[in-house]
Amino acid sequence: MQRIAIDMDEVIADFNTKHLRLFNEEFGENLTVQDLMGTRLRLLRPHLVERILSYMVDPGFFRDLDVMPGSQEVIRELSERYEIFITTAAMEYPTSFNAKYEWLKEHFGFLDELNFVFCGNKSIIRADYLIDDNARHFEGYGGQGILFSAPHNRDVTGYVRVNDWQEVRAYFLK
Amino acid sequence: MQRIAIDMDEVIADFNTKHLRLFNEEFGENLTVQDLMGTRLRLLRPHLVERILSYMVDPGFFRDLDVMPGSQEVIRELSERYEIFITTAAMEYPTSFNAKYEWLKEHFGFLDELNFVFCGNKSIIRADYLIDDNARHFEGYGGQGILFSAPHNRDVTGYVRVNDWQEVRAYFLK
Repeated sequence: MQRIAIDMDEVIADFNTKHLRLFNEEFGENLTVQDLMGTRLRLLRPHLVERILSYMVDPGFFRDLDVMPGSQEVIRELSERYEIFITTAAMEYPTSFNAKYEWLKEHFGFLDELNFVFCGNKSIIRADYLIDDNARHFEGYGGQGILFSAPHNRDVTGYVRVNDWQEVRAYFLK
Repeated sequence: MQRIAIDMDEVIADFNTKHLRLFNEEFGENLTVQDLMGTRLRLLRPHLVERILSYMVDPGFFRDLDVMPGSQEVIRELSERYEIFITTAAMEYPTSFNAKYEWLKEHFGFLDELNFVFCGNKSIIRADYLIDDNARHFEGYGGQGILFSAPHNRDVTGYVRVNDWQEVRAYFLK
């Protein structure tokens, strides 16, 4: 059985909506996901980079992110034909461990928690496919990288790309 | 550069000494590591299995384990010639995440935290070598398993075995 490794933030967990909301509330702005196309919030507002990164240090930040549309249904389907692992770079935010685990148990409780991986450098992942929004994780990775579209990677080229979970379904279940 | 993945409990972290101490204190016993040869505490005292497993659910349990003799020095040496990852089955005790991370930062702070992996099923690990005391983790693992001697695995055969960190040094740096 082939194995698919799947990232969390911006792939199955809607990181941007909450991050932008917290930022807009604090600074009285009205930035939208459209403003993040081809860039990142910290590049748009470089003088606020420390504050922008600090939201993720709150141990609860990752606990109530929305689920990305279609991800539950498609992953449930995929899990009948593929071995599914969730592989998230949690070591970048060590305060996030518990929230990420609880979020996965709540929204993806049909997966085996022994298939959750909290890592940093994803070249350690042994899987046939890795679905991730950060192309840097494909460096040194041994399988087929699949770039999941996110605002920040709009202009990144040279990878297999899927724009949403319906395209993931089509790629694997066609 | 070849990569070595290294388990935590009973390999770099002295799990048994603390576990036995807590058990002996609570039940007025005098069990030693010698009593665990070829078995496990929960098999020796099956009527207490729930309590025996419950110690590890305490979020602080893994925070103050002793470091296994020689592990720091040898891993520091190995890290000059090999890529080192720490791969621990933390998903079995999700309350352990923070303690394990802090323990690693305290005792193995010379390693990059992006090379820490909290997982469950270790077949997800892509490394040339895996040093582990649980032979079950070598099932489905793609590299060379190296069984690190622990009381419970004394009678396990069929694997490359190292008895202590000096033997790890000899294996990799001979």
